[in-house]
Amino acid sequence: MCQLLGMNANTPTDVMFSFAGLANRADEHKDGFGIAFFEDRGLRHFVDHHSARHSPLAELVKHYPIKSDNVIAHIRKATQGEVKLANTHPFQRELWGRYWVFAHNGNLKDFQPRLHGAFRPVGDTDSERAFCWLMQELAKAHYSVPSIEELSLTLAELMPQLNAYGTFNMLLSNGQALWAHGSTKLHYLLRQHPFGRVQLQDEDMSVDFAQATTAQDRVAVIATEPLTRDEAWVAFEPGQLKVFVDGLPRP
Amino acid sequence: MCQLLGMNANTPTDVMFSFAGLANRADEHKDGFGIAFFEDRGLRHFVDHHSARHSPLAELVKHYPIKSDNVIAHIRKATQGEVKLANTHPFQRELWGRYWVFAHNGNLKDFQPRLHGAFRPVGDTDSERAFCWLMQELAKAHYSVPSIEELSLTLAELMPQLNAYGTFNMLLSNGQALWAHGSTKLHYLLRQHPFGRVQLQDEDMSVDFAQATTAQDRVAVIATEPLTRDEAWVAFEPGQLKVFVDGLPRP
Repeated sequence: MCQLLGMNANTPTDVMFSFAGLANRADEHKDGFGIAFFEDRGLRHFVDHHSARHSPLAELVKHYPIKSDNVIAHIRKATQGEVKLANTHPFQRELWGRYWVFAHNGNLKDFQPRLHGAFRPVGDTDSERAFCWLMQELAKAHYSVPSIEELSLTLAELMPQLNAYGTFNMLLSNGQALWAHGSTKLHYLLRQHPFGRVQLQDEDMSVDFAQATTAQDRVAVIATEPLTRDEAWVAFEPGQLKVFVDGLPRP
Repeated sequence: MCQLLGMNANTPTDVMFSFAGLANRADEHKDGFGIAFFEDRGLRHFVDHHSARHSPLAELVKHYPIKSDNVIAHIRKATQGEVKLANTHPFQRELWGRYWVFAHNGNLKDFQPRLHGAFRPVGDTDSERAFCWLMQELAKAHYSVPSIEELSLTLAELMPQLNAYGTFNMLLSNGQALWAHGSTKLHYLLRQHPFGRVQLQDEDMSVDFAQATTAQDRVAVIATEPLTRDEAWVAFEPGQLKVFVDGLPRP
């Protein structure tokens, strides 16, 4: 299985610390990694079919402070589809003049949806098929980019249809919001004032967020497993869809 | 105006040398850079709104030998659209289960095509509008991915329609072939056996390609201005469209 990392913030924030925590788990998840950073409507999208532990690209991401308000990262352990660049998450498409980014943890058995719209998979994973189907169904449900509330309602109808095929933990963003669906294993954390020193779960690495933040800053971190010690990570309930905007989950 | 760099090869080849030549021209073209590498159907896509001369990402591209058979790079000097990530070439879309990458040098005046298909611009450049229109027209002309010959025929009909709006030097690839259209300024070079030492035009940097190649290797390099001295760069004629496959222009 793979591991997911998402970040949604009210101020452009770097994810060097959280990504280091994720990459540290890449020994077991060695079949590629990817990370996408929204900057307003623009997107940086890095993928590598090497492990996040050894890739020069991962080194860059760990040390180049790319500030973003929506980030989705993924380290892969192949279940369906061979190890190659075209199968590396997150996947990216354009819809309604916005980029959409998607990453999946889990396994959808025998999921061969009818793809009659404008979105076709390039690789051969169940995950990219699920993303193409989601984009197709969103495109059918709305004529142009709807409000976050409306998108959330449509996604809440679509998620169970995918989840029915197996395990479907996923992260999705269009740069305005970040949607997270918990199927079996997903956690989130809200980090806000007062900020303090935080230590990674698996590694002897800590950072004092008080140094780099203001009292107004707010960030939500979503991950397969809690990345840090001594922070209040919340587990998603099975089948729960949450949308994060400006560093907060919407009620 | 911007500068373009394309590479099409019969063996996955790195472009560190050519990209260094391009990046050297980035003082004048300081409004961002981007480069896309196909690996089979997969794609690595790097964009930065910083100059290729100073970006850590450009440093990575200059020193990490990413092997690819189709590469498109662009350094930007903004004419239309502000300096931001969403306006940085090359642009990327998916059509028929293949990624498509596009970069443009020139300026299309008052080009506001009717975009009624599945492709909408995310940023606000004439270039991305042209790309979305091209994708839309290709999608209308063919039901699924056609042969390179058929695609070339369709593109040969579309190019003059864009060129009519101004200057339209462009590079386009779907990972199978690289199409290049010369409007005012574009050159190409075929590099093949016997390989020798080559020197960059603007910089005191040379490389001996004989060291890193076999007699079967063949690469076509396409650039706004010749990048090297003492090689047989060929200028595109105005309105000329060429398609490169396996390191050779098709007749």
